[in-house]
Amino acid sequence: VTPEEFRRVGHLVVDWIADYRTRAATLPVRSTIAPGDVRRRLPTTPPERGEPLDTLLRDMDEMILPGITHWQHPQFFSYFPANATLSSALGDFLSTGLGVIGLNWQASPALTELELLMADWIRQMTGLSEAWSGAIHDTASTATLVALICARERTTRFSLQRGGLQGEPRPLVVYASSESHSSVQKAALLAGFGRAHVRAIPVDDAFALDPRALRQALADDRREGRVPCAVVATVGTTSSTALDPVGAMADLASEFGCWLHVDAAMAGAAMILPECRTMWAGIEGADSLVLNPHKWLGAVMDCSLYYVRDVEHLVRVMSTNPSYLRTPTDAQAVNLRDWGIPLGRRFRALKLWTLIRSEGVSGLQARLRRDLENARWLAAQIDAAPEWERVAPVPLQTVCVRHHPAGLEGEALDRHTLAWLEHINRSGDAFLNATVLGGRWAVRVSIGSETTERAHVAMLWERMQAAVRNAGI
Amino acid sequence: VTPEEFRRVGHLVVDWIADYRTRAATLPVRSTIAPGDVRRRLPTTPPERGEPLDTLLRDMDEMILPGITHWQHPQFFSYFPANATLSSALGDFLSTGLGVIGLNWQASPALTELELLMADWIRQMTGLSEAWSGAIHDTASTATLVALICARERTTRFSLQRGGLQGEPRPLVVYASSESHSSVQKAALLAGFGRAHVRAIPVDDAFALDPRALRQALADDRREGRVPCAVVATVGTTSSTALDPVGAMADLASEFGCWLHVDAAMAGAAMILPECRTMWAGIEGADSLVLNPHKWLGAVMDCSLYYVRDVEHLVRVMSTNPSYLRTPTDAQAVNLRDWGIPLGRRFRALKLWTLIRSEGVSGLQARLRRDLENARWLAAQIDAAPEWERVAPVPLQTVCVRHHPAGLEGEALDRHTLAWLEHINRSGDAFLNATVLGGRWAVRVSIGSETTERAHVAMLWERMQAAVRNAGI
Repeated sequence: VTPEEFRRVGHLVVDWIADYRTRAATLPVRSTIAPGDVRRRLPTTPPERGEPLDTLLRDMDEMILPGITHWQHPQFFSYFPANATLSSALGDFLSTGLGVIGLNWQASPALTELELLMADWIRQMTGLSEAWSGAIHDTASTATLVALICARERTTRFSLQRGGLQGEPRPLVVYASSESHSSVQKAALLAGFGRAHVRAIPVDDAFALDPRALRQALADDRREGRVPCAVVATVGTTSSTALDPVGAMADLASEFGCWLHVDAAMAGAAMILPECRTMWAGIEGADSLVLNPHKWLGAVMDCSLYYVRDVEHLVRVMSTNPSYLRTPTDAQAVNLRDWGIPLGRRFRALKLWTLIRSEGVSGLQARLRRDLENARWLAAQIDAAPEWERVAPVPLQTVCVRHHPAGLEGEALDRHTLAWLEHINRSGDAFLNATVLGGRWAVRVSIGSETTERAHVAMLWERMQAAVRNAGI
Repeated sequence: VTPEEFRRVGHLVVDWIADYRTRAATLPVRSTIAPGDVRRRLPTTPPERGEPLDTLLRDMDEMILPGITHWQHPQFFSYFPANATLSSALGDFLSTGLGVIGLNWQASPALTELELLMADWIRQMTGLSEAWSGAIHDTASTATLVALICARERTTRFSLQRGGLQGEPRPLVVYASSESHSSVQKAALLAGFGRAHVRAIPVDDAFALDPRALRQALADDRREGRVPCAVVATVGTTSSTALDPVGAMADLASEFGCWLHVDAAMAGAAMILPECRTMWAGIEGADSLVLNPHKWLGAVMDCSLYYVRDVEHLVRVMSTNPSYLRTPTDAQAVNLRDWGIPLGRRFRALKLWTLIRSEGVSGLQARLRRDLENARWLAAQIDAAPEWERVAPVPLQTVCVRHHPAGLEGEALDRHTLAWLEHINRSGDAFLNATVLGGRWAVRVSIGSETTERAHVAMLWERMQAAVRNAGI
């Protein structure tokens, strides 16, 4: 494709996206197709000859769109919001168009420098001290893996330079609440700790880690000859946005010589609101922190910010310095390949730059406050409605709920919950998901799509009330 | 930004990219700025209020472009080509515009299904058997980390479900050539093996792994009570595109019960040419394989394909199944989160789809053959020129070279090599990099930018000859 052909089709693609975003609200939120339906309609073998890209947008409409679940839909209430704002999209287009790769500073200085600056802007926006330095990773799963490896290496005084985990005399242990994200356990297993050395610490009634139980687990392991290594605090759990007590956990981590990693993948965005910052009080006592601008804040996926206080330690764990990557400027410049796992990196800072410039801090704050207010409104409706039960506190924008008529308990209640959820999801009018809280299924209403206004939440609440009447109970 | 505002500015962005690609050839290839120059010109604090995005493109020209090293420039001969073809860019735009995230199949069925199909198209294009299944990762560094973790878990029969590497009685060992990519050692260290258990196997005169030395190392470790775990073969090393003997290594891996991972990040693309496939003869004996369509082939970064023969094993190592990700279709559909480290994933298959459809297999083949022919031409010029020395075979598109006048040896020769390299790079006329081969610096000429024709290579050769006269010797 020549630049001129790209110009022509590129305009059509921009128009297609603008039209898609305009009409997204009219489409069924969750894709209605069955497994295999998309693939069945596409050629099983690659084309021998090229074809003009004019057919592309027709195929997007006919073959791809039916297989899309619309995350940018105002009735998308599932998982967490993943706002791919159109201002951020423009920055992402520019990154794609430039086609540069940040193997080192010299491979495109602007890529490294804007990334460090954007990480610093977000640091300031979230009220973190200057002690933190950050860079962009793909996802919180990866950042948490990096954190646990850094913890492992601090505890073992760089065993990777010797025999690795294979040379350590006493096993290291990782601690996180039973409500922590699946990626924490996955990271611990991938980093070689082993399931036997990962502790799921019990939570309190608000689904936040119980610090007395953490102290007990740390003390038990130490007494029995194991080495407490890393504690993971979650600020905004996936099920219910519960808030672990970061300050108390920081104290315990310090007392037991552990690394403290804070998973604020979702709730980190809320810290651009000063009134929310008590939610992670004690954050300056942590060693590392991940927050995802590609969720609620509005950066296009993938954009996960990983901050540490000790960059030198991070680089010592992650650095490589082969001859073919050395440059005359290495001594004066930062090479971000040494801040994470991948060597190559896209110019991802552009999509943060266009987002923050276009919306401004005050614009982002106003949108998040709107969503918090919508969540409080929905919580109040549920609290006032007979037979409905809000099953967790609502510190942020996610409301966990059951319809709980008298006499319906146990597995029958679970069946009812999943039935009315599927009734809504199958309708295409809205998309929610479920989670297990306190041993029973609950429905999550996660508010915060860019286009979701109060009217959409009110419509959802009506649909929920209609669904429990029609879900076949 | 509303869809209509996005439509307006989006057209400007497309035009800016088309213009950029048209004029890229007129810009100095390597950025000429000094560390800190970009950041110094940008506001240190985020803007309180949003601004219209109209200033964006002016800022791209004034603040960002001077800090860009132009990977899409026809005189870019550094590292490896990273072709962000404009056909692929359009697919990437669509992915960004849709803004969907593939947490599981249901979160956008088309994302999963097109990704599996595109991995299968590339499998067919590279002549791999149907035994392989692949998915997209960000980079080969990450894929190689996944491979070594999978090897670790096969050898230990899933130690991650028990005590991890901390519970194993005998240390596991990883083997790769001394010319393997830095990411192999990094992956081994991150996976917990420890530097003491990573063997750098000597290479032969062509910089390919010596299988007799590998056998010796495997036997030594086994005799001394260690457990051979993983062998990594490189098809197309980074320094000189050397080709490890995959078939012989597969035999040894099988004999010693090791996992064989093949790093074909660069050379994998060449396998779309049937005449190149002897370069990885024996590939069907490997357990895993990574190749990067975001290099020579032309997919926009990031797009690294990781293939395995035993998907069930991969999923058993990588899977998580928290309640909040379960869906009614889990039993019938593939959830790609269980094929790698990150949970979230972009719709990256779209950029492969538009690339392959637009260029066709024959178009991609023709471009790669052009580049191979250009590399052979340059090698012939060097071979025929007095005082010039080609320091490695040229099986693919990279030519490693020294200007080696009589009497110039050792460190003086190194200084000369780095001086004429920097002379060219500083001029902005072309961009090359250096590597250490056989203990001495050599310059790499890595051909294969989409826009690089024979005339550009001929011009480079003239510049190289001029540079050695002017580099201050």
